[in-house]
Amino acid sequence: MSTPEKKLHLNAFIMDVGHHEAAWRLPESDPYAIWDVAYYKKVAQIAERGKLDSIFFADGPVQSNDPSRRPPGKLEPTVLLTAIAGATEHIGLIATASTSYNEPFNLARRFASVDIASAGRVGWNIVTTAGADAARNFGLDDVPAHKERYDRADEFIDVVTKLWDSWADDATVADKEAGVHTLKERVRAINHRGRFFRVDGPLNSPRPPQGWPVLVQAGSSEDGKELAAAWAEAVFTAQQTLEDSQAFYADLKARTVGHGRDPESIKILPGIVPVIGDTEAEARELEEELERLINPEHQKRNLASRFNLDPDTLDLDKPLPLDLLPEEDQIEGAKSRYTLIVDLARRENLTLRELIARLGGGRGHRTFTGTPVQVADTIQHYFENGAADGFNIMPAVLPSGLEKFVDTVVPILQDRGLFRAEYEGETLRDRYGLARPANRVHTEQQATA
Amino acid sequence: MSTPEKKLHLNAFIMDVGHHEAAWRLPESDPYAIWDVAYYKKVAQIAERGKLDSIFFADGPVQSNDPSRRPPGKLEPTVLLTAIAGATEHIGLIATASTSYNEPFNLARRFASVDIASAGRVGWNIVTTAGADAARNFGLDDVPAHKERYDRADEFIDVVTKLWDSWADDATVADKEAGVHTLKERVRAINHRGRFFRVDGPLNSPRPPQGWPVLVQAGSSEDGKELAAAWAEAVFTAQQTLEDSQAFYADLKARTVGHGRDPESIKILPGIVPVIGDTEAEARELEEELERLINPEHQKRNLASRFNLDPDTLDLDKPLPLDLLPEEDQIEGAKSRYTLIVDLARRENLTLRELIARLGGGRGHRTFTGTPVQVADTIQHYFENGAADGFNIMPAVLPSGLEKFVDTVVPILQDRGLFRAEYEGETLRDRYGLARPANRVHTEQQATA
Repeated sequence: MSTPEKKLHLNAFIMDVGHHEAAWRLPESDPYAIWDVAYYKKVAQIAERGKLDSIFFADGPVQSNDPSRRPPGKLEPTVLLTAIAGATEHIGLIATASTSYNEPFNLARRFASVDIASAGRVGWNIVTTAGADAARNFGLDDVPAHKERYDRADEFIDVVTKLWDSWADDATVADKEAGVHTLKERVRAINHRGRFFRVDGPLNSPRPPQGWPVLVQAGSSEDGKELAAAWAEAVFTAQQTLEDSQAFYADLKARTVGHGRDPESIKILPGIVPVIGDTEAEARELEEELERLINPEHQKRNLASRFNLDPDTLDLDKPLPLDLLPEEDQIEGAKSRYTLIVDLARRENLTLRELIARLGGGRGHRTFTGTPVQVADTIQHYFENGAADGFNIMPAVLPSGLEKFVDTVVPILQDRGLFRAEYEGETLRDRYGLARPANRVHTEQQATA
Repeated sequence: MSTPEKKLHLNAFIMDVGHHEAAWRLPESDPYAIWDVAYYKKVAQIAERGKLDSIFFADGPVQSNDPSRRPPGKLEPTVLLTAIAGATEHIGLIATASTSYNEPFNLARRFASVDIASAGRVGWNIVTTAGADAARNFGLDDVPAHKERYDRADEFIDVVTKLWDSWADDATVADKEAGVHTLKERVRAINHRGRFFRVDGPLNSPRPPQGWPVLVQAGSSEDGKELAAAWAEAVFTAQQTLEDSQAFYADLKARTVGHGRDPESIKILPGIVPVIGDTEAEARELEEELERLINPEHQKRNLASRFNLDPDTLDLDKPLPLDLLPEEDQIEGAKSRYTLIVDLARRENLTLRELIARLGGGRGHRTFTGTPVQVADTIQHYFENGAADGFNIMPAVLPSGLEKFVDTVVPILQDRGLFRAEYEGETLRDRYGLARPANRVHTEQQATA
C-alpha cells in the first residue's frame, strides 16, 4: 500500500450550488438543490470518479447570510454525510461541527456513528464558531472571547478522543456459549474533570473504525494554528500568494514538530477556486458572467460588518479607507480572514468594487482562472515548492465546476504522477496517509500505519 | 385519501437483534449486526414489506447496560434513520432524543434535516432521560428532578417547534432574474426567552416537509402524561392488562381534550412482545429457549438497582419483599415502569425468578406468546375495546420475529379490514392520519389535513 513517491491530496469543498455567491442564478443551477440529498450524492459521486481524497462541508449553527442573495439554510452535516455514505464507496467525508455549541459526548457519538456507517471514511472539521448571532441561538448574549473558545476547543477534543478510546478495539468477543458479548474491563469510564467539562463516559458506541475520525482544522489565527499543531491531521487554509502559502506551511509544520509530532502527520491544503475553461478566453468569460451576477451593495454591507464600519463610510469606487480599519487583535470574529482581505486590498490597491469581485468566488480563497493545464501547473508549482500537501478545491459553480476539474485537471495530474490513479486502502486515513491513532485510554493499543 | 373506516396503526420497535436480552445468543443471530447499518436497512425493509406505519429506535446518551450480557453501544439514532431513509421509500422513521442533554437549536435542525432527507417520514420520540449515569456525561453530578426535567422538556418542545416554524413554507421564491432566492421577511427570528432557554433563531433550515416531524412520547408518569396530552401525536406505552390499557387510553384521551385538542390527534400504541409460532407448542418452545438463555443473577442486580435495594436482600426463588420497596414518588428514574413491575409481581405473586422471565422479553411490556391468529385476535380485541389505536410491536428476536409478524399476523389483520393493504400518502403524518401543523411563527399558515 506504500506509494513510491509522495502524492498530492485533493479535497472538494462543497458549498451550495457553488462557492460563488451568484452561482445559483446561472441557467444551469437548480436553486432548490441545496436541500436535496440526491444532489449531494451526485456531487460526491463526481468527486469519487475523480479519485479525490474527500469532500467537505462547512457549517455553523446559525442562519447568518442574507437569504435573498445567497441560498440560505443547510442540511445538518452529519446527516448529510450519512446520506452520502450510502451512495458512495471510497471517498472521504468531512463535516464541520462546533466545539462551542455542542456537548462532547453527543458529538463524539455522532461522528463515531457516521464513521461506522461509512466504514471509516469520516473526518471532523473542528471549528469554534465566530459570531454573536450563533451565540444567541445557545443562550448567550455574545460570542465567547477568541482565546476562551480555543481553550474550550482544546479540552473538547481531549474529551472526544478519550471517549472514542473508551472502548478497546478488541472489546467485543461475542461468546454466545458463555453469554459474554463485550468484555466489561475493555469498556472503561474516562472520568474527565476539566475546566469546561466533566464527562464520565464510557461512550455508548464501539471505537470507530478509524480509531478516531480524521481531525481537520481550518483556523489560521495564532490560537487556530496552535490548536492545529496540537491536534489536526489535515488543515484547510486560505492564502492569496505562493509566498504566504509557503510561510504558513513552514510555520505550521514547525509548530507541529514543536508539539512532538511528525510533520507528515499533518496535511496542509490551501483553498483554490478554479474557474476553468478549455481556453483562457472561455475561462475569463465564465468568471465575468459570475461577476456580473454579484450584487455589490449587498457585499458592501457584508464587508462593512466584517470591518466594524458603517456601510456609509464605504464607496464602491474608491479604495478601502485603510486608516479607519481596526487592528486584527480588535477583531473577535474570523481574525485571519480579516487580515487576508485587508492585505489583498492594500497590496493590489483595489477599489471596493474590485475587491468584491475578487472575493465573490472564494470569500478570501485564491481564485485561479485558466485552462486545465494552467490549473494543474499552479497546483504542481505549490506542491513542489513547499506551499501545500495538496489542495482544497472550491468550485465556483457546482456540479459543473467539479466535473470540469475531475474530467480535465485530474487526468493531467495523474499523467504527471502527482495524483493517484486508483484508490488504495479503505479509510479516510488511508487516503491521506495518516496512521490509525494509538488508544489513549487502553494504552496498550499502538498506532498502526 | 380518506379511508372508510378506522384502521389500526403498527409501529415496529427495533432494539438490537431483538428485545429479549438473550436474543443475540441464538444460533440465528449475528452479534455484530447491532453496529451494522446494512442490518437495520434490512429490518426496515421487512417492516415496509408489511406496510407498517413506522419503525422506532429507543436511545439514551449513556452506556448503562452490562456490556457482557446484552449487546452494548448503539448507533446514534438520527444517523441511523438517515442511513435507513436511503434504503426505504415509505416507512416512517422515529428516533428518540433527549430534551435534558441537547440544545433545542441543534436538535431542531437535526430532525429537520432527517425529515428533508426522508421526504417527510420522520418522528421525534421526546424523552427526558432518567439516570444519574447519563447526567454524569453532561457535567452534572446527578439527574435533575423529575418535575424539572419535564418543565424543561415542555419549554424545549416549544422552542423546537417555533424554530421549525421560523421559515414560512413559501419562503423560497428562487427568482434568478431578480436575484432573490428566499424572502427575508419569510425567515423570521423567534426571539425565545424562557426559564431554560434563550434562542433567537431563525433556524438555518427550511420548514420540514411535514411542518413538524411527528411528536412522539412514551413516559407514563403524571408529568409524562401531561406532556403527552399537551404535545404528543403518538404515544408508546406499556401495560400488562386490557383494563390497565383501557384506563390509560381513556385518561390520556381525556387529558388531550383538556388541552383543547382533538382526541384523534393523539394515537396511543401499547407495546406488545409477540412470540409467534405456527402452533402454540412452537411458540412456547421459542419462549422457553429464550428464558433458558437469561442470566438471572444479572437481572437480579438490575432490578435491585431499579428498586433502590441491595441485591443481597433479594432471593431468586422468593416473592419480592414488598415491604422493603419505596413508593413511586420516591423514584426519580422511570416512575411508571417501576410501578408496573411491582404491580405485576404483586398481582401474580411471582417469585423474583418468575418476574425476571416475564420481563426478559419486554422489560415491562406485555409478552404475548401464541399463534398468528391468537396474536391478531388480541390486537383486534384491544383495538375494538378502547384500549389502543394500534400497537408498538417489539419482536423478541430480530429480524426473524418481525418477519414472522409481517408474514403471518399482518395478512390476517389486512383480511379482517383492520390494517392497510397499501400505503397511502407520502409522509409519516399521512400514515398516522395526523394533520400538518399550522405555523406558529408565520401565523397566517393554517394546518392541513
